[in-house]
Amino acid sequence: MILNFYTFMRGFGEFGAMLLYMVLGCMSGKATSHDAGSLLISSLQYGLTGMTVMHIFGFISGAHANPCVSIACWIFGYIPMDMMMLYVSCQLTGALTGYFLLLQMLPQEVIDNSKPAVCLVEPLASLSNLQIVGIECFLTSVLIMGWCALWDVRSGRFLDSVTLRMGFLITACSFAGGTLTGASMNPAKTLVPTIFHGNPETVLLQLGGQILASIVVPHIWQLAYTPRYRLLESVPLNQPCL
Amino acid sequence: MILNFYTFMRGFGEFGAMLLYMVLGCMSGKATSHDAGSLLISSLQYGLTGMTVMHIFGFISGAHANPCVSIACWIFGYIPMDMMMLYVSCQLTGALTGYFLLLQMLPQEVIDNSKPAVCLVEPLASLSNLQIVGIECFLTSVLIMGWCALWDVRSGRFLDSVTLRMGFLITACSFAGGTLTGASMNPAKTLVPTIFHGNPETVLLQLGGQILASIVVPHIWQLAYTPRYRLLESVPLNQPCL
Amino acid sequence: MILNFYTFMRGFGEFGAMLLYMVLGCMSGKATSHDAGSLLISSLQYGLTGMTVMHIFGFISGAHANPCVSIACWIFGYIPMDMMMLYVSCQLTGALTGYFLLLQMLPQEVIDNSKPAVCLVEPLASLSNLQIVGIECFLTSVLIMGWCALWDVRSGRFLDSVTLRMGFLITACSFAGGTLTGASMNPAKTLVPTIFHGNPETVLLQLGGQILASIVVPHIWQLAYTPRYRLLESVPLNQPCL
Amino acid sequence: MILNFYTFMRGFGEFGAMLLYMVLGCMSGKATSHDAGSLLISSLQYGLTGMTVMHIFGFISGAHANPCVSIACWIFGYIPMDMMMLYVSCQLTGALTGYFLLLQMLPQEVIDNSKPAVCLVEPLASLSNLQIVGIECFLTSVLIMGWCALWDVRSGRFLDSVTLRMGFLITACSFAGGTLTGASMNPAKTLVPTIFHGNPETVLLQLGGQILASIVVPHIWQLAYTPRYRLLESVPLNQPCL
Repeated sequence: MILNFYTFMRGFGEFGAMLLYMVLGCMSGKATSHDAGSLLISSLQYGLTGMTVMHIFGFISGAHANPCVSIACWIFGYIPMDMMMLYVSCQLTGALTGYFLLLQMLPQEVIDNSKPAVCLVEPLASLSNLQIVGIECFLTSVLIMGWCALWDVRSGRFLDSVTLRMGFLITACSFAGGTLTGASMNPAKTLVPTIFHGNPETVLLQLGGQILASIVVPHIWQLAYTPRYRLLESVPLNQPCL
Repeated sequence: MILNFYTFMRGFGEFGAMLLYMVLGCMSGKATSHDAGSLLISSLQYGLTGMTVMHIFGFISGAHANPCVSIACWIFGYIPMDMMMLYVSCQLTGALTGYFLLLQMLPQEVIDNSKPAVCLVEPLASLSNLQIVGIECFLTSVLIMGWCALWDVRSGRFLDSVTLRMGFLITACSFAGGTLTGASMNPAKTLVPTIFHGNPETVLLQLGGQILASIVVPHIWQLAYTPRYRLLESVPLNQPCL
Repeated sequence: MILNFYTFMRGFGEFGAMLLYMVLGCMSGKATSHDAGSLLISSLQYGLTGMTVMHIFGFISGAHANPCVSIACWIFGYIPMDMMMLYVSCQLTGALTGYFLLLQMLPQEVIDNSKPAVCLVEPLASLSNLQIVGIECFLTSVLIMGWCALWDVRSGRFLDSVTLRMGFLITACSFAGGTLTGASMNPAKTLVPTIFHGNPETVLLQLGGQILASIVVPHIWQLAYTPRYRLLESVPLNQPCL
Repeated sequence: MILNFYTFMRGFGEFGAMLLYMVLGCMSGKATSHDAGSLLISSLQYGLTGMTVMHIFGFISGAHANPCVSIACWIFGYIPMDMMMLYVSCQLTGALTGYFLLLQMLPQEVIDNSKPAVCLVEPLASLSNLQIVGIECFLTSVLIMGWCALWDVRSGRFLDSVTLRMGFLITACSFAGGTLTGASMNPAKTLVPTIFHGNPETVLLQLGGQILASIVVPHIWQLAYTPRYRLLESVPLNQPCL
């Protein structure tokens, strides 16, 4: 990693992407209801926010906007470790700034109506600890596999509508797990509201599942779903996972 | 079919695709309600899950995730019979594994609230047997025609957004038949929950309609909608129906 | 127009497209409710059915599935008059066959619950005759302009996602006018249920608005939105408006 | 700016785009409700109308349909100032004509049910003035950044599905701010209903936020997210921001 304008642009890109993700994805304040209409809105909003972020920042920094994605990108060898560290720190700073901005913009009434807190979803009480880890790990795996497919050379010709596909993939995951664990699939989005309020115990379970997925999935992808010619090919190390 | 890494990758691709299809498509447990909000969520979720599966596994195995699609692919001559058999067995194994995993991840409360069972939809009581066969056959025909159009050489330049189109095609079919027969359009998805619980009689009707469509539609497509030059062209046999 | 296999394929394509349009677009039987959930479902279903039909039949016959579109295509000079006549007759036959099939597939209970009839929407009682004509004419104009943009040489590079765009255009029009006039924008879809049941008077107003749009819009497009070089260019007459 | 047919076509394109935007986007008259179903419909309708307008007028005038977008386009130097003035005046005329047409087409009953007026949304009473400015500025910034990404040379290969992406970006913003400030993000759409009815004070706050975003965002984009080679390149001045 060389500290030049491009490195700054990428880091600032991840900062902006994560800031947008927090503010736009949580602004309606409907994330915590359990009826059909609210699940529809929060799932569509989460997915379409992901699409928006990828559309705007896709060719600037890769628009990971998710520490799990940056970790997977590093395991694949597409970015070096120091770049991954930079990405993750910019994402966490962006999430913190975004959450702070969001609380300034929302009226008190909306903040008070969000239980347990704005952008924070409690897992269903009847879920066991193992089930919480399992569901978050499964859903994050789906997300990481979507990124694996995006990064794969075999989909290189089909990138035009990929932001829409990733956005609707997030929506599908959110439909599936939204009423169970909240389906955040994003350590930054899970961690930041917890720092302000929150229940550390279930958050650790969710984080565990998410990070587990980001480590296991790239290895499965490389072992089972990548033809051998990838192993002979020398992958350029210093390019964004775009 | 040669037993090499590519064959394994394809089979394991179909296994993963069908596993994902079952878990992601049924996790919300809303498949059986009949009000507008639940129909919206289950239809969108079913379609977007299809899109997700095609996005991830599309260039690995073709992402059929449906025995009917593999049968149609074989009738067209795009894959040989032994490959079709492999695909179908991997799909059934994947569906069984996925359904088992799903039952482990869902809390007891959600499982008990799903009537008659998780991911199982009873046809409307006022439908006659012939109507059940007819509706499933019609909807599966629409799905198979979508795949025919995808595989056709004439759409070869327009593959970028095809996963989105197929996903929304599934959503449209699910809107149409979701409250009538459940509109599964997928023998693996219909069969597996029935093995765990279920009503064998209506399931046989649904399966009959689905398989009828997968056999009849490719012939109609070849007779009526394919220009003659296709008959002269030698179609490579051993390529995935991608 | 030469009576060969290609002419038959196109005519049979329009027949199939319109049949699919009627059955898939009307099967849920929710077209006539006025609450938010039903408007959402019927609008999404109408648009996604349009997308499905264009995906399947797009490169076979152009997938007009709408007499207004064929008339506009003829006014532009893309198809000769006898081909337009063939398209319109195949569309009307397809719509009749589709509606007949639909009535066989739906249980009596669903048919009885559809007021005034399956797939038939009464305009809002408080609309004046002029308003009915105006709204149908405006919405059909939007649809025809969407087709004009699709056919324009300037969008020739951007056809991959065009079926999705046209589908969501139909959804947008249906959101706008669904509770006012039903927003069918399609003479075949308006006429056929009326032959079975129906109120001839308001149907004539809707038809009038739709056909007015299909005649006026192509002229506006050619006068105001087409650069002069189009007039010098010789347009091939015998190609589908794809 | 030379007064020839191309200039007229662009101006008339913006006129038509904004007219369509007003009529199609406001016709359902559901913009002002606060329950989940209405928010879903109004947000989807607003986004899909944006997509429709971009699909039809995209290659005619760039389909800004928003004074903020034209201002940003001018700040980037893609259009000269007199062209920007022409665009903004055509947009305002189009919005006025569209709103007038809309009031003729809607039955009295629907107009009376729209509080405070058709297509006009009052900001939530519990929002402070600064919060209104902040939210409108933030959401309009997201929209302008979406346009920045669209115009950027780096996304030049990925324009096929861009109308869908921009449409869903508008939907995401409308989900986020629809129940807070109405999330119009468009001075023409905010101003015109106010001329007919309306509350000048909150409208000025919304306008302020929107125009602030259209001035600040292009500078941020050029400073932080544009690689240096853009400064050396001579940007052609007289081309539409397509």
